[in-house]
Amino acid sequence: MTQREVALIVGGGPGISASCARLFAQEGMRVAVAARNVDKPVLKTLAQAHDVLLVRCDAAEPDSVAALFDTVTNQLGTPRLVVHNIDGRPPEVFRKAITEVEPDAVLATLRNATFSAFLVGQQAARGMLAVDAGDGHRGTILFTNASAALKGFPRSGAFAAASHGKAGLAQSMARELMPQGIHVAQIPIDAAIGWVREDGTRAHWLAGESRDDNMAHPDRIAQVYLQLHRQHRSTWTFEVVLRPWTENW
Amino acid sequence: MTQREVALIVGGGPGISASCARLFAQEGMRVAVAARNVDKPVLKTLAQAHDVLLVRCDAAEPDSVAALFDTVTNQLGTPRLVVHNIDGRPPEVFRKAITEVEPDAVLATLRNATFSAFLVGQQAARGMLAVDAGDGHRGTILFTNASAALKGFPRSGAFAAASHGKAGLAQSMARELMPQGIHVAQIPIDAAIGWVREDGTRAHWLAGESRDDNMAHPDRIAQVYLQLHRQHRSTWTFEVVLRPWTENW
Amino acid sequence: MTQREVALIVGGGPGISASCARLFAQEGMRVAVAARNVDKPVLKTLAQAHDVLLVRCDAAEPDSVAALFDTVTNQLGTPRLVVHNIDGRPPEVFRKAITEVEPDAVLATLRNATFSAFLVGQQAARGMLAVDAGDGHRGTILFTNASAALKGFPRSGAFAAASHGKAGLAQSMARELMPQGIHVAQIPIDAAIGWVREDGTRAHWLAGESRDDNMAHPDRIAQVYLQLHRQHRSTWTFEVVLRPWTENW
Amino acid sequence: MTQREVALIVGGGPGISASCARLFAQEGMRVAVAARNVDKPVLKTLAQAHDVLLVRCDAAEPDSVAALFDTVTNQLGTPRLVVHNIDGRPPEVFRKAITEVEPDAVLATLRNATFSAFLVGQQAARGMLAVDAGDGHRGTILFTNASAALKGFPRSGAFAAASHGKAGLAQSMARELMPQGIHVAQIPIDAAIGWVREDGTRAHWLAGESRDDNMAHPDRIAQVYLQLHRQHRSTWTFEVVLRPWTENW
Repeated sequence: MTQREVALIVGGGPGISASCARLFAQEGMRVAVAARNVDKPVLKTLAQAHDVLLVRCDAAEPDSVAALFDTVTNQLGTPRLVVHNIDGRPPEVFRKAITEVEPDAVLATLRNATFSAFLVGQQAARGMLAVDAGDGHRGTILFTNASAALKGFPRSGAFAAASHGKAGLAQSMARELMPQGIHVAQIPIDAAIGWVREDGTRAHWLAGESRDDNMAHPDRIAQVYLQLHRQHRSTWTFEVVLRPWTENW
Repeated sequence: MTQREVALIVGGGPGISASCARLFAQEGMRVAVAARNVDKPVLKTLAQAHDVLLVRCDAAEPDSVAALFDTVTNQLGTPRLVVHNIDGRPPEVFRKAITEVEPDAVLATLRNATFSAFLVGQQAARGMLAVDAGDGHRGTILFTNASAALKGFPRSGAFAAASHGKAGLAQSMARELMPQGIHVAQIPIDAAIGWVREDGTRAHWLAGESRDDNMAHPDRIAQVYLQLHRQHRSTWTFEVVLRPWTENW
Repeated sequence: MTQREVALIVGGGPGISASCARLFAQEGMRVAVAARNVDKPVLKTLAQAHDVLLVRCDAAEPDSVAALFDTVTNQLGTPRLVVHNIDGRPPEVFRKAITEVEPDAVLATLRNATFSAFLVGQQAARGMLAVDAGDGHRGTILFTNASAALKGFPRSGAFAAASHGKAGLAQSMARELMPQGIHVAQIPIDAAIGWVREDGTRAHWLAGESRDDNMAHPDRIAQVYLQLHRQHRSTWTFEVVLRPWTENW
Repeated sequence: MTQREVALIVGGGPGISASCARLFAQEGMRVAVAARNVDKPVLKTLAQAHDVLLVRCDAAEPDSVAALFDTVTNQLGTPRLVVHNIDGRPPEVFRKAITEVEPDAVLATLRNATFSAFLVGQQAARGMLAVDAGDGHRGTILFTNASAALKGFPRSGAFAAASHGKAGLAQSMARELMPQGIHVAQIPIDAAIGWVREDGTRAHWLAGESRDDNMAHPDRIAQVYLQLHRQHRSTWTFEVVLRPWTENW
């Protein structure tokens, strides 16, 4: 019997994470989603509809991330596709002047966005290196990122630091792990994303400003993640920036 | 009756161009390939096996490029997917010291690689803007590029200039045309590519140095081109760098 | 009586910090140097020879940084030139595989290099914005950075994250503060630096590998810092990468 | 008798070129300025006030550039500081849609901006490599560039191509020539520049939009060029972007 691939998505929102979970399950993978709060309706739906394993995890805590990978490996198998999909910004840093933002909130942003990416990436790499898939592609580690990884905007020093930091980590991991058979990529999304409601309509916190196709659709983002995982190792891409046709960049 | 999409590939080598032509034809498109020399065996095979239209064209000459688009539009329809796949380096500039390379060869490189990209891109955009596809995606213009577009290596000033120039053109066209419904992207390939022989084996001018999956496989490159063409306009990618897992970057 | 400019250098090594302290003092500024350990011989020499104020400070601690700026402002005046010159890498992360580096050491790197840059930058900006220099240039904030800010090298994920993070912070601060009259710049040094011994010879931990002018001389780096501070606001530079003529990049 | 350094500035406008010529002459260098039209008042003034040698030259023509370097070398000596300060845009390409710009004007832009940079850089390098200055710094080649070298703006495909091309050339030359003792740098100026009238006031084609220090002052740009020339080879900078404090970037 062929073993089903195992995918782990860290971050449990109704946008990219939910779309990835659905798509990966439809493609035949066994899927786990990790989140601080696993009681959200969107996650319950995923568990019921797609047999997704939900694991409570604080991705900024080393022990919690180690326990997450133990749980997933024991229950589903070693993850071969790992997505780090955490924004990590506490509301306190949002559009704050550099002179006004609280140090605690800045440190929290670095921990939640950058340090958690390291913790997840490290556990993912350890697991993948311990299994020999035989085809030279041991697995894929994907980091969602933001336009703040490409450009440091004013009044967003904390997020610029955290997003650039995540990009630097991802690039270093790519150079280190690709020759060992692990595809590492980051996907900076230069767009409002929003999510899909139960009834199929789109929701977004900037409601009214945008038409549907002026926002990045999470289902279409998930397809790019799957394409990256399926890329042959003779042609691996490290970075894919996604932006809507109307975006000003 | 649904109209078949028209794809035009400018550049007629046995690598990316041939792989694109095959894949696009298999996907149901009507395909044209333009080349200075249309008598190459690989092109004859494409014409016979996939009904590919071959058009003689010097892509560095305005009149020749205008005639090419007229021919394709008249015989197949307005191209909705256009690939500029020309390296453009005359052998005289290859790994030449900046003090030794001949001015004529430098100018030829700029004309063949950068100016031809403009000529092809301009005609492609004109055609796409003149047709209303109705779905908000008027067409896709793809520029193959090289790692010299990302980094100016020593002893390759002419190619660095031409490749960077092509990148700047592509970026400007993307910012200008994406809001008008045309997806513009560049694909710098940081790899040896090689091509596929009739018998399925790989050939490369650096034979012996590489294993198959240490070179970018042109069939897999073509798949990325198709994915770019199929991306929804809510999530367009401007740049995809492709490199093998073993590449040093 | 004209008031002397006040310069504060955070980080107390024998290389860039010492060279900056000497040069700024020679240019007539009142100079303070902050370090975890202010008992180092190089700092004692600076205090005696150039009347440099030494302040004990842990730049990764919000209260310690706030106290530092209070002390300097009370004793010398509001700093108009602030240099953040902290590498921040604990030895435990140096050239470690991503699978082996300890989470605590990674978090320490982010705190020491990136978070401390925020703390110093925030206090510096607050002070500068509170004083009206009258000429439209309120002050200069300079961040020393590393080549890891430009490229994520393998086996250095923690440092790549911290250095990229510092770069993102600096860029955001530049976009936010330059229109308010504060010149923010980062100086990634793509070189071995070493330092100058009492007898004028150069020392470096990679002794024997390099000739003097294959390493970036800290006195010459300090001159660039001074030039950045003296730039007119009609022509401000955000980033200056310094590398020796022999560097491979 | 110590020999005076020879500086050659290619491009003869009243802004950066004139400011460089004045500053270099004041610093004791023998200065030549090359321009298509050497009868402009600003050049006549330079010749009279600073003994600047004026040479008629079409920098896009190989023979003309070779003759220029012969003339300067014979009359003043081998240039040790060469500035390529040519914008190269014919008015026909300015803010033109990609579908409307004339092919001839695009090719002229590539010739005037990119190809001329190669021709000047090649002759400069040949001369510098033929002379042994003895101190390990054979000379400096500086390329003025534009923000279009950093970002491809819409409706400026030709200029984006030419500016990016010049950047790629400069980077390749830097990697090739710096280890041979030639400092190569590019200076993208992300600003309106304007020039200084005889009476000291500033002129600019966007008059009224800007205050003086919202435009890059050509005298201050010239100082950066001199600083680059004077940098020690242990700390060479390849790129300096200059922008006013109010610039949106």
